[in-house]
Amino acid sequence: MRDPLKHLQWERGALWLLDQRALPGRIVWIRARDAETVAGAIETLAVRGAPAIGIAAAYGVALAAREHGATSRTVGAAIRRLARTRPTGYNLFNALAQMEAAVASAHDLKSATLDAALRIHANDELDCDLMAAAGVTLFKRREGVLTYCNTGALATGGIGTALGVIKTAFAAKRITEVFACETRPVGQGARLTIWECVRAGVPVTLICDNMAASLMTGGKVDRVLVGADRIARNGDTSNKIGTLSLAMLARAYKIPFHVVAPTSTFDASLATGKQIKIEERAAEEITRATRGLERVRGYRVWNPAFDVTPGRLVTSFVTEQGIVRPPFTGRSLFNATAGSN
Amino acid sequence: MRDPLKHLQWERGALWLLDQRALPGRIVWIRARDAETVAGAIETLAVRGAPAIGIAAAYGVALAAREHGATSRTVGAAIRRLARTRPTGYNLFNALAQMEAAVASAHDLKSATLDAALRIHANDELDCDLMAAAGVTLFKRREGVLTYCNTGALATGGIGTALGVIKTAFAAKRITEVFACETRPVGQGARLTIWECVRAGVPVTLICDNMAASLMTGGKVDRVLVGADRIARNGDTSNKIGTLSLAMLARAYKIPFHVVAPTSTFDASLATGKQIKIEERAAEEITRATRGLERVRGYRVWNPAFDVTPGRLVTSFVTEQGIVRPPFTGRSLFNATAGSN
Repeated sequence: MRDPLKHLQWERGALWLLDQRALPGRIVWIRARDAETVAGAIETLAVRGAPAIGIAAAYGVALAAREHGATSRTVGAAIRRLARTRPTGYNLFNALAQMEAAVASAHDLKSATLDAALRIHANDELDCDLMAAAGVTLFKRREGVLTYCNTGALATGGIGTALGVIKTAFAAKRITEVFACETRPVGQGARLTIWECVRAGVPVTLICDNMAASLMTGGKVDRVLVGADRIARNGDTSNKIGTLSLAMLARAYKIPFHVVAPTSTFDASLATGKQIKIEERAAEEITRATRGLERVRGYRVWNPAFDVTPGRLVTSFVTEQGIVRPPFTGRSLFNATAGSN
Repeated sequence: MRDPLKHLQWERGALWLLDQRALPGRIVWIRARDAETVAGAIETLAVRGAPAIGIAAAYGVALAAREHGATSRTVGAAIRRLARTRPTGYNLFNALAQMEAAVASAHDLKSATLDAALRIHANDELDCDLMAAAGVTLFKRREGVLTYCNTGALATGGIGTALGVIKTAFAAKRITEVFACETRPVGQGARLTIWECVRAGVPVTLICDNMAASLMTGGKVDRVLVGADRIARNGDTSNKIGTLSLAMLARAYKIPFHVVAPTSTFDASLATGKQIKIEERAAEEITRATRGLERVRGYRVWNPAFDVTPGRLVTSFVTEQGIVRPPFTGRSLFNATAGSN
């Protein structure tokens, strides 16, 4: 039995991916033997979460290098294919830039790309542990925490970003209760965060996204922790649609709001979040939840997958290098081989 | 063929209620011949919307007066039963107080209660037209409008509260586009507002509740119009869960935020919204949207049906008496036979 929390597993020339669309009801694995299968898994959200997408794409490149007659040209085409899967999260481009560098300097394409993918995965796992160690210091007493989307093991190569901090802080007796927003329309909160919290023994309460303000006015939320998909030099943070609303409410109610993300999510090329490309997804992702709506014609649907939270609304950023605040200019914060979108 | 927009119809000793749970896919009518059927329809959200609940309950009392062996005692018991259906919306208690007064002074229970119910219904229909006439004056130019939940014909005895204003302002060429929030967990926006706007030819775009902040930062929203379930003397307004979040965002982004409600929604007995009882509904109302969640055990769900928006966040209140602002102390604003919860 595979451990579903280790949702990306390289085994004998194949990548085993947990199909997150089947959670929490069923455990379904996808065995990917080529880059196209990985690209499809990313596009259809079988694998999601910015760091996890980067890792999966890296393995996708390693798979491309094992395909029959692979050359640096065919592997380069696979890299470009994987780069077209989703536009917003930065880790994807960061990982692919590292894979490109590995391909460029490779003596043996197969071993060089697999080594690079395994290193990206291992680095992310370590980053998660370091973020958890840094993040736990935020908690001065036992607190109620609100989180959003899924930022746990399922979103990363380790224990998670924001949810990794939360699981660690709960184990350290610094958290009384976690509140998880559903996260419409894909439901990563309701489907994945609830499932991960229950497995970890963390007491969790599910709410609809629109209930966060009431929860805050009721004094139940001492801190908000979220992940990120791409962070600009001024701290502007793109994350799952709905994050901006929580950040605005947290500011109004004077509740600390933290972004937890490895430096592989920080895009040194962006001065502000204005330049971040926001992915818009299919209307059906929203409408399929409403029975009978398929019979109604003549209305529109807007489905942006992400929003941008101004850096000024973020109390602090928890990274594997410690707790930081913008502007981000130091070399250390951008020490990864930065790729561009 | 009955007109589904006239969703409460008295006909030969029975109340025909449109079952709003079947919308937008199917048109299903419930023929109520006793007060208990009406009470059940209110509890299960077959009929919803504060003014509509008041009207339906009034007809329920009229049905109780027609039951075999009805006396003022049995009709009084029916009133108490109907009062227990839902705690938050004020129109229910306001309507039942009027029915109680009609019973107390009745020579003929049957005709007195039916007359009173028909009068409550007709008054609400007129109130809707007057609110629309007042509300349309808010629009100085063609605007994009955000609304929440369903506040149209389906929520009232006429054309609606906020959505009545919107339909009227669109006809007067003061609105370019309407944005409707899904309104989790019951989906009154996705199911009912989309359906009503499409029928009225009003261009409407569906968004998830968590997308409102992005829409506002994008400059698409010039005004927010919502309904109300109970309004205190200081303007504190209970309305569908999620309204508070929109009001906070509108304030932060300097977007006018209006509550549209007849004075039958204003509770003169309440100094502030702190005393408003917020109904909490079953967890299943939230969880049933997430396939597979029924297999997960060991998490909690919080499902408040309403929140309270501070009066200071409301730019103005649109009533059948015109556009008003708190504090509400005048006799005229509380001219209905006020009942108590």
